[in-house]
Amino acid sequence: MQIIKYPEQNQWEEILRRPMLKTEKLFDTVQTIINQVKGEGDKAVLAYESQFDKVELSSLEVTPEEIKEAENKVAIELKSAIYLAKRNIETFHSAQKFKGKKIETMQGVTCWQKAVAIERIGLYIPGGTAPLFSTVLMLALPAKIAGCREIILCTPPDRNGNIHPAILFAAQAARVSRIFKIGGVQAIAAMAYGTESVPQVYKIFGPGNQYVTAAKQLVSLRDVAIDMPAGPSEVEVLADETANPVFVAADLLSQAEHGVDSQAILITTSEKLMKEVQYEIERQLGYLPRREMTEKSLKNSKLILVKDREEAIALTNEYAPEHLIIETADYMDIAERIVNAGSVFLGHLTPESAGDYASGTNHTLPTNGYAKAYSGVSLDSFIKKITFQEIQSEGLSLIGPAIEVMAANEELDAHKNAVKVRLRNL
Amino acid sequence: MQIIKYPEQNQWEEILRRPMLKTEKLFDTVQTIINQVKGEGDKAVLAYESQFDKVELSSLEVTPEEIKEAENKVAIELKSAIYLAKRNIETFHSAQKFKGKKIETMQGVTCWQKAVAIERIGLYIPGGTAPLFSTVLMLALPAKIAGCREIILCTPPDRNGNIHPAILFAAQAARVSRIFKIGGVQAIAAMAYGTESVPQVYKIFGPGNQYVTAAKQLVSLRDVAIDMPAGPSEVEVLADETANPVFVAADLLSQAEHGVDSQAILITTSEKLMKEVQYEIERQLGYLPRREMTEKSLKNSKLILVKDREEAIALTNEYAPEHLIIETADYMDIAERIVNAGSVFLGHLTPESAGDYASGTNHTLPTNGYAKAYSGVSLDSFIKKITFQEIQSEGLSLIGPAIEVMAANEELDAHKNAVKVRLRNL
Repeated sequence: MQIIKYPEQNQWEEILRRPMLKTEKLFDTVQTIINQVKGEGDKAVLAYESQFDKVELSSLEVTPEEIKEAENKVAIELKSAIYLAKRNIETFHSAQKFKGKKIETMQGVTCWQKAVAIERIGLYIPGGTAPLFSTVLMLALPAKIAGCREIILCTPPDRNGNIHPAILFAAQAARVSRIFKIGGVQAIAAMAYGTESVPQVYKIFGPGNQYVTAAKQLVSLRDVAIDMPAGPSEVEVLADETANPVFVAADLLSQAEHGVDSQAILITTSEKLMKEVQYEIERQLGYLPRREMTEKSLKNSKLILVKDREEAIALTNEYAPEHLIIETADYMDIAERIVNAGSVFLGHLTPESAGDYASGTNHTLPTNGYAKAYSGVSLDSFIKKITFQEIQSEGLSLIGPAIEVMAANEELDAHKNAVKVRLRNL
Repeated sequence: MQIIKYPEQNQWEEILRRPMLKTEKLFDTVQTIINQVKGEGDKAVLAYESQFDKVELSSLEVTPEEIKEAENKVAIELKSAIYLAKRNIETFHSAQKFKGKKIETMQGVTCWQKAVAIERIGLYIPGGTAPLFSTVLMLALPAKIAGCREIILCTPPDRNGNIHPAILFAAQAARVSRIFKIGGVQAIAAMAYGTESVPQVYKIFGPGNQYVTAAKQLVSLRDVAIDMPAGPSEVEVLADETANPVFVAADLLSQAEHGVDSQAILITTSEKLMKEVQYEIERQLGYLPRREMTEKSLKNSKLILVKDREEAIALTNEYAPEHLIIETADYMDIAERIVNAGSVFLGHLTPESAGDYASGTNHTLPTNGYAKAYSGVSLDSFIKKITFQEIQSEGLSLIGPAIEVMAANEELDAHKNAVKVRLRNL
């Protein structure tokens, strides 16, 4: 952990620098795998599963029997928790449905937008010892609410060819259409281009390691949309002297345990709080199972003491954190002035964990300062808005001459002509 | 023009294939220019302006005097047309303002979204003989309505160091903050990374040639958002026997004149109409000034006769046209069933030109089939939605235990702990 007191504004850029993934260096390797899958389909996917996931699969798709079995293996307590989270995520995302209204911009000229679901989407859920079933909910539930017709999920199997039961249970609960035992770059390529088994999708969502991230970047250059660019996860706590140092330390640590490149930052106006948080982090670290990795990622973390509330807000907007927890007396006033952040957690009883799992907001959020231009995943991510316009003869008379003048000035005479032949006919 | 009658479904992919930009081959060249601008700022920009735009500039920014002069040079007729278009674009985009509502997902758990403008955005407007002032309006007006604080515009100067007056007038009318005489890759790099003169922006919008497109792709991999991936412009006309062949031909030609890689497609259920349109295209081509280029791009164009209305709709959704003009008797019924398109023009009196200039809808739209996953530019493109959540003690009691169970099952104990320390304190 680095302690920074009263930084000058010219130090901000340096202070707020993030640990970075350098995915470009992987592009050649990753492109080779993508090309193989694009060219050879299932055959290539099966070969890469053997090579990277050390498993010989006879078929790629998870069967209904496997899903049923999984359901029996998930503890009732976890099932209830998943159902609670599911309900809240559904409540919040259902409220985001878009209803376009018809606008008459001039008499006889009516324009509107209509939201239409992306027909086929793909979700990638990483493997590893811990099953990220929460991400299954965060991506598949809004997709279903949006009306996506087909939701494909790819996740790497273990060496016995099995998927973690909690993943399968969450996928079933969220009504994922089809689940495939495919990991890494080969999963992204299979969904981007389709294979004999895997349907081609129009947009790919979900987290992954640097290879998966590079693959998503490469396929998104031309062939398929992706949720957003990826970077390591991060949290900022903005706290004043009213904050509870035990809570603040717990919040910073909950981010730090994500991975060695995670970043947790405290920005505070209280030197007393800063010292107490520092002490608390050391204390709580003592009883955390992921201590070693958490300690490593704490090296990226910073406790920053600033001179006043104004500077705390300015520094926060400059950092544009993925997660921002505001633990101050006047958290609502500060929230009003936040312009760059992914998801904001307000007050002393709203830990990031709440949004990670169960409050109802989405946990797929812009990292790496992308919050300056990107939103997190929401219902919007699963639809596109098509614009419509209908012009009556009266409307064409009103706007036709302006169109003709503008088209002529842009030297697009056929554009002008498309209006002219109609005006002549009115 | 290719005539295709009653294609089988297995031919669809081939029939609907688009002329493609191959930007990846340019990546090395383009990255070199980007790196120079990133490293050397204005000095590199000035050198590239000399090299590519053949102009020696003493300063990059357009002055207030130049803008005033431009205003005097624009014909009153064009000014009026621009004001009419401006008003309609503003009317339609103002109606798109997002108002998030607070949702109590459980008692004591409140979540909401808030739209916040992207603070600084950059617009790129290509050069050439025809000034694309309409694109200035389409990008700057929604940005202003969204509340973007700073709108930067880059466009290449002519060999005398001047920008076309219509561009400057439109920029002034749309309240662009600052205008720079920079073209091509160097403009994209300057806006992505900032130079001594040009402020760094968070999102870049606007069309361009294949070098500009490649530059936008490269800077978007990590550093800045872009509007959407680019491809050649295209139109589909879906018409039945009630369509006027003169209008249909004019609509196809208005797309074909955009560039040699543009694509214009007719899908119709009427062989009679197809023949008449074919004749009309030849006839109208005779009096178009851009005849030579239009003839070249007509080589990419197709007149497709299908067996019925159902097939016409299915083929349309598979093609996912940037612009779709529905010239049929039952155009509203067909519109209901369109799921993949950028902007749809309804009926016999709604040419694409209307949306290109003045109906009020945006003309920056997804090409190349991207309409399957992307929307066109709208007010959404200039904002991000930040999520907020506030949990009261009652809410934490309700969702806390579920969070603990889920976090433990994902092996994220510090996440669990952030809830535990709070529950213990209630």
